Amino acid sequence: MKIATLSIGDELLTGEIVDTNAAHIAGRLYDAGVRVARHLTVADDEEAIVAALRELSAGHQAVVVTGGLGSTPDDLTTKAAARVAGVQLEVSAEALEHLGSFSNRTTGGLHPKNLSQALLPAGCTLIPNPLGTACGFQLTLDGCRFFFMPGVPFEMERMLDDTVLPTLAGEGKGGWRRITLKLFGISEAAVAARLEGCLPADSPVELAYCVKFPEVHLILRADVRHLELLEKSAAEIRGRLSAETFGRDDETMDDVLAALFRKSGKTLALAESCTGGMIAARITRVAGSSAYFLEGNVTYSNQAKSRMLSVPPELIIAHGAVSSEVACAMATGARQAAGSDLALSVTGIAGPEGGSDEKPVGTVHIAMADGVSCRVERYNFPGDREAVRGMTCFTALDWLRCYLLALQK
Amino acid sequence: MKIATLSIGDELLTGEIVDTNAAHIAGRLYDAGVRVARHLTVADDEEAIVAALRELSAGHQAVVVTGGLGSTPDDLTTKAAARVAGVQLEVSAEALEHLGSFSNRTTGGLHPKNLSQALLPAGCTLIPNPLGTACGFQLTLDGCRFFFMPGVPFEMERMLDDTVLPTLAGEGKGGWRRITLKLFGISEAAVAARLEGCLPADSPVELAYCVKFPEVHLILRADVRHLELLEKSAAEIRGRLSAETFGRDDETMDDVLAALFRKSGKTLALAESCTGGMIAARITRVAGSSAYFLEGNVTYSNQAKSRMLSVPPELIIAHGAVSSEVACAMATGARQAAGSDLALSVTGIAGPEGGSDEKPVGTVHIAMADGVSCRVERYNFPGDREAVRGMTCFTALDWLRCYLLALQK
Repeated sequence: MKIATLSIGDELLTGEIVDTNAAHIAGRLYDAGVRVARHLTVADDEEAIVAALRELSAGHQAVVVTGGLGSTPDDLTTKAAARVAGVQLEVSAEALEHLGSFSNRTTGGLHPKNLSQALLPAGCTLIPNPLGTACGFQLTLDGCRFFFMPGVPFEMERMLDDTVLPTLAGEGKGGWRRITLKLFGISEAAVAARLEGCLPADSPVELAYCVKFPEVHLILRADVRHLELLEKSAAEIRGRLSAETFGRDDETMDDVLAALFRKSGKTLALAESCTGGMIAARITRVAGSSAYFLEGNVTYSNQAKSRMLSVPPELIIAHGAVSSEVACAMATGARQAAGSDLALSVTGIAGPEGGSDEKPVGTVHIAMADGVSCRVERYNFPGDREAVRGMTCFTALDWLRCYLLALQK
Repeated sequence: MKIATLSIGDELLTGEIVDTNAAHIAGRLYDAGVRVARHLTVADDEEAIVAALRELSAGHQAVVVTGGLGSTPDDLTTKAAARVAGVQLEVSAEALEHLGSFSNRTTGGLHPKNLSQALLPAGCTLIPNPLGTACGFQLTLDGCRFFFMPGVPFEMERMLDDTVLPTLAGEGKGGWRRITLKLFGISEAAVAARLEGCLPADSPVELAYCVKFPEVHLILRADVRHLELLEKSAAEIRGRLSAETFGRDDETMDDVLAALFRKSGKTLALAESCTGGMIAARITRVAGSSAYFLEGNVTYSNQAKSRMLSVPPELIIAHGAVSSEVACAMATGARQAAGSDLALSVTGIAGPEGGSDEKPVGTVHIAMADGVSCRVERYNFPGDREAVRGMTCFTALDWLRCYLLALQK
């Protein structure tokens, strides 16, 4: 089945909004076994919408459309669809009832300006919207099935899952599957070298690289006839990149780390300078993190390092705040103050100011104390302030992951 | 001038990557006075690319293309462009020299697999890429000017600004301008009610709403002939929403707050529970924040609240960790420990666990101490863990903004 997506909205073509709907729909369709052949975006302009509907109906069996179903004058999708279908707009009793009951439930009554949302092309089939006023609708134009939905992401996502995917998935014979391996601490080029000869050129398994800074994702795709080969290829690749692969599919670094902490029973304290709370914010993103995360110290000033973490002021004077000595003292101090099993610290120069020949911007020390020893390392991260902070944060999380993983062995 | 954009890549049509390039290019073109009429995405498939180039050349004067210029077998854009132009691929001496010198500078030598990137359609004009191996090129197909660039965002963005925009902007007669007003703490519906009668229906100034959670952006657009009216409309809208408008155009909440801190000379300490370091991470995102930000305490456990912030354990027992009493004690304690002018604290239930009838998930207390008094307020934020933490963080930043703003008056 050949399928297309169409996004409608001025704000997409003036760059004010990034079209996350197109990627979401494509991803969900892929997982349901259907691949999108092309995506088109047009403005809130009746002629442009009419032209797009006509074009896409010619080359595809189904089209998923989002946007332009609101209640303001620039919402023209319904009108354009009726024109292409050669039918009138009619008041849909079903849509009207939904508008009334939804408005009563949420805002205490129907606003007159929402009434236009009950006008739908004659003969269309409603797509229910449990989370908003705008109903979607299904309509066949020139033999191609169109699914119209509002552009509000959370409304559209629900309607897609409830109605559109169940309708389309049955038709996607066979279908596609994918496995995503998530890597950290290795460049795309190094991955490619490590995977040399792993997948023959004629393998039915496609391999794609996808850099989501600072992560590198490897995506393996195949149609369901080759499911076994897909799993086998993923296992072989994971074997070649075992140290760098931290997760698979929907797993995030935060999730993986949380599971390791829960399993280990260890507790954690943090002492952050250049990351300014980013590591603590990542750790606490996971519900239930209070079971292992005790406290974080954001010690931006030297006084704070000394008072909160008992770092001797002489040590800071002798080596500088950005030094392996101070990083170690921060970790040891944080661990003792919190009474935690583990403590991790970072101190560095995120820039753009503060660098020197000896310690340029990007110089970062990470240390971890566990009561037995204190591991410390110096890094030189490239990029701007945001990149240095991001790399520092992710590297610190990966230290914790590797430490807890080693405990299991 | 009618202009289109074209993105090429399998990963865009399988949902693995969100197409941020399309929005970036559209935004930069708009700011240069040119509006994009349509956007198209096709897969790494030679026939699909050829069809897309032919289609777009028919209805447009210029097309900006990204993707498919890499060195792997699935990069087919150059081949497709040559086919449509009816020319051969030739080794470009200029591209070859760039490949050599770029590779020498970054990786110590040219990799043979990159050689394919020197093969370009005969007669094209190079678009230099200072940040990567893949040169772009310009080519006229059926009277339409095509600009081909790689899909790597930072390479493309630089090439767009250096070469494509200067070429196209001269042709965008008149052109478009916009003003973005950034609001917080007010719903889209409430904004609409407040702006009733502000812009007449036939005004040449377009008004668009754009929710970027937790911010609401108001975008005013007009062509340059109405620049004065655009500014006047923005001023009137800002007047009606003065308390809620925190910034304009590129200004972020972080920037605005940093400027206010620098101007005020005040110093800050933080005590975070449910946000777990997010507020400190936002504050320290801005370079130079060490001038006013002294330290942050991420006091996740009750012991940490007592030890780091001197919150009496009896107070926590009597009122619970999520209470106005504990929030105030955290702020006062953080201020005294750090010796800062101001201290802000948050304590709340981000969920999904930990809620009760009396204190459901989303219950958050924010407090701010300045040595004279301690302001404290209770909120009930809707949504999931991520939403509650995000709203808490942004609300706290807005408290600081309003406090520092009031000092100026």
